[in-house]
Amino acid sequence: ATTIPAKAVSAAEQLRDRAVTDQTAYKVVESLTTEVGPRVAGSPNDERGRAWAVAKFKELGFDKVYTEKVTYPLWERRSEHGAIVSPYPQPLTLTALGYSAGTPKGGLTADVVGFADLDALKAADAATIKGKIVYVSTHMQRQKDGHDYGMGSATRTLGAVLAAQKGAAAYLLRSAGTDAHSRTPHTGVTGFRDEKQAIPAAALSLPDADQLERVLASGKPVTLKLDLDVGFNGTYTGANVIGEITGRKHPDQVVAIGGHLDSWDLGTGAIDDGAGVAIAMAAAKLIKDMPQRPDRTIRVIAFANEEMGLWGGRAYADQHAKDVAKHQLGTESDFGSGKIWRMTASVKPEARGAIEQIAKVIEPLGVAYDATKPGGGGSDLSQMHGKGMAALSLTQDGTDYFDYHHTANDTLDKIDPKDLAQNVAVYAVFSYMAAQANGDFGSAPNAFANDGARD
Amino acid sequence: ATTIPAKAVSAAEQLRDRAVTDQTAYKVVESLTTEVGPRVAGSPNDERGRAWAVAKFKELGFDKVYTEKVTYPLWERRSEHGAIVSPYPQPLTLTALGYSAGTPKGGLTADVVGFADLDALKAADAATIKGKIVYVSTHMQRQKDGHDYGMGSATRTLGAVLAAQKGAAAYLLRSAGTDAHSRTPHTGVTGFRDEKQAIPAAALSLPDADQLERVLASGKPVTLKLDLDVGFNGTYTGANVIGEITGRKHPDQVVAIGGHLDSWDLGTGAIDDGAGVAIAMAAAKLIKDMPQRPDRTIRVIAFANEEMGLWGGRAYADQHAKDVAKHQLGTESDFGSGKIWRMTASVKPEARGAIEQIAKVIEPLGVAYDATKPGGGGSDLSQMHGKGMAALSLTQDGTDYFDYHHTANDTLDKIDPKDLAQNVAVYAVFSYMAAQANGDFGSAPNAFANDGARD
Ligand SMILES: [Zn+2]
Ligand SMILES: [Zn+2]
Ligand SMILES: [Zn+2]
Ligand SMILES: [Zn+2]
Repeated sequence: ATTIPAKAVSAAEQLRDRAVTDQTAYKVVESLTTEVGPRVAGSPNDERGRAWAVAKFKELGFDKVYTEKVTYPLWERRSEHGAIVSPYPQPLTLTALGYSAGTPKGGLTADVVGFADLDALKAADAATIKGKIVYVSTHMQRQKDGHDYGMGSATRTLGAVLAAQKGAAAYLLRSAGTDAHSRTPHTGVTGFRDEKQAIPAAALSLPDADQLERVLASGKPVTLKLDLDVGFNGTYTGANVIGEITGRKHPDQVVAIGGHLDSWDLGTGAIDDGAGVAIAMAAAKLIKDMPQRPDRTIRVIAFANEEMGLWGGRAYADQHAKDVAKHQLGTESDFGSGKIWRMTASVKPEARGAIEQIAKVIEPLGVAYDATKPGGGGSDLSQMHGKGMAALSLTQDGTDYFDYHHTANDTLDKIDPKDLAQNVAVYAVFSYMAAQANGDFGSAPNAFANDGARD
Repeated sequence: ATTIPAKAVSAAEQLRDRAVTDQTAYKVVESLTTEVGPRVAGSPNDERGRAWAVAKFKELGFDKVYTEKVTYPLWERRSEHGAIVSPYPQPLTLTALGYSAGTPKGGLTADVVGFADLDALKAADAATIKGKIVYVSTHMQRQKDGHDYGMGSATRTLGAVLAAQKGAAAYLLRSAGTDAHSRTPHTGVTGFRDEKQAIPAAALSLPDADQLERVLASGKPVTLKLDLDVGFNGTYTGANVIGEITGRKHPDQVVAIGGHLDSWDLGTGAIDDGAGVAIAMAAAKLIKDMPQRPDRTIRVIAFANEEMGLWGGRAYADQHAKDVAKHQLGTESDFGSGKIWRMTASVKPEARGAIEQIAKVIEPLGVAYDATKPGGGGSDLSQMHGKGMAALSLTQDGTDYFDYHHTANDTLDKIDPKDLAQNVAVYAVFSYMAAQANGDFGSAPNAFANDGARD
């Protein structure tokens, strides 16, 4: 069975205690949001973000820094406006969704047909939708594990595709968010994957959705105007940016951690996912600061274009599928900066004891180990887990995550430095202990194909 | 001495108890924000707002509905953008201030000079400011009486004028608001009163101000670009809209209440000041629903263009100065929809007993009477109080008012129907009791010139 030597356990305890007061992660995310800011995939700021990441890895003293190309369709937001035209003219605060089509020059004006939820849209006759602007409501509640986002994101991704298939002129949803009182619409990708499939698609802020729903409830015909100057614009090649602390004994065996470097353009990508990049960078940096290098390599991956469909994660998994057995254990941070409260794992049975050893060291940080659930590896690294990488899920407190997620309000002030440091402690501990383990966690081609993990 | 007959006191108690469960005010502000929405002075929606007010007064059964013209400079907001150009390019969320000049076509790019507060700007040498964008921080805390807004609004109004006088290219402030985590800048008027005096002036949201302050703190030169398509555009004639419940015994003697009908354009003017209009309309309507008309007239004034400098209030005071002694008592609601917690009054000494009678009836609503402070009549009616009208101040709980004030977040969802109804109860009680009083409250030309009231 795989175990972690007592010496490594006590070193991990010290690492944990150093991490909880360490400011590195906060300084990293402060630097990223202040010096780069929004970095939507394929934008000039995305390129500046990659340069920032390379420089930051070097500044933090990583042993090896490199990039791996990621190619994807370029989508651009130039301007966006919406308004109720009749019966009661007034502007609406909205934001276009990723891979939305643009409206014709001068805008698109059409009647609205409203649906209470995605199921109602699914059940609707295409004849009632053709040529209309489809509006779908959502009903997300604040939750520690944010599970309503499953429904919210489905309404955004599938709803747009369904509306297009049924002949809608455009698609509008009540934002997949929990900030009932904030006029900050939530963007995010649709299910469109090419220009031919796409129709104009946007999200209303929650107060604007309330407004539209009040007008729809009046029973009068409601006409909206959408003016979205957005759309596909060819292909772009960006990159995953990778920094490594090279393993002393097994440099080719890697613990893989990371976050995604891209963000949406409305905010500055502090909680999504500057925090994740910062947590992983800081955890590896703290391991680097130990008296000697860990036995295995700690690899920090700042992924490209997670937001529009895991492009960086899929590219990484494609490029590294052949090395899956060399991936000791991995997981990505991509759920804000709230404290981690739960660990779950997908590992081979003979490595459960080692996972329990890790659980013991992070328990004082408030993390409970649930041995009954799989570990999915997080957003981009879910793709590598899909190839067979042993993976954890480190579940953060996302109670307020969907207040800010994908909005203009995703800014540095939302990050509590102490909560962020708790995350760093957990990542540092598990990464170090996995790197020092006597044995592996079961990574092998398709090793966890049926574990039921969903991230 | 002026007193209120026992029969009127007990009728007022019943009125109060009906009012706290009445939904009229909420329905009125829902109608205004849904059917009209933003109604910045001089805009097409301002005109729609006047038509709405005339129709609503009639629908509620007011005895007399009329308008009185108000003329003022027209100022328009067409578009607004800002960005940090160097050292770290990224967009800034900002909003132009009332009577701001526009920037030249293509925008204005200049270095920033930052000040910690208005006093620091006052002390600054003009040579350090000339040709630069002046940035001034603010530091408002949430307070029940919102007193920090005195400093905040002075930073906005005087700061812009001072910066212009010292030769600044433009003026930027940290929004006069308390929503530390919301990217919703707070607009509001500057001290500019004509086109020649004005320079471009705008407010950053608080997270954007944090961002700019971080970059300024780096010590590097900071260049901003402002692109404000806004400005003066001639003269406009709007109107105060007035509805009356005609007095049975003294129709020419009026209790004057109201709110302002105009709003800023970013939100829908729910708390500022749809609530005030709704409170006054509903209070008068409840009095109208009594078995017979009150002894004196209840006059509800929906003022024009309060936001850009009390234009409606000043016009009313000019037009009605000669009738000041006919104004029995008055006050305006213009501080959101939070509960009223304090009453103060400026009345003749012989009417203090009647004020105490009113205080007793509203005490169960949670309103404390402070006999040591003057009553100023509220925003627009402060002008009529200045002419000599006896006046109250009915102070609302404004703890969260400056989270939303003058932002896109001033929307219907911020209003608690129960809190709103408490306001209606207070307005109905005092209006009715003043209308039934045996005697007056001391209104006479310049009767309260030195009472120290500030609203
Ligand atoms: Zn993310
Ligand atoms: Zn995201
Ligand atoms: Zn106001
Ligand atoms: Zn105002």
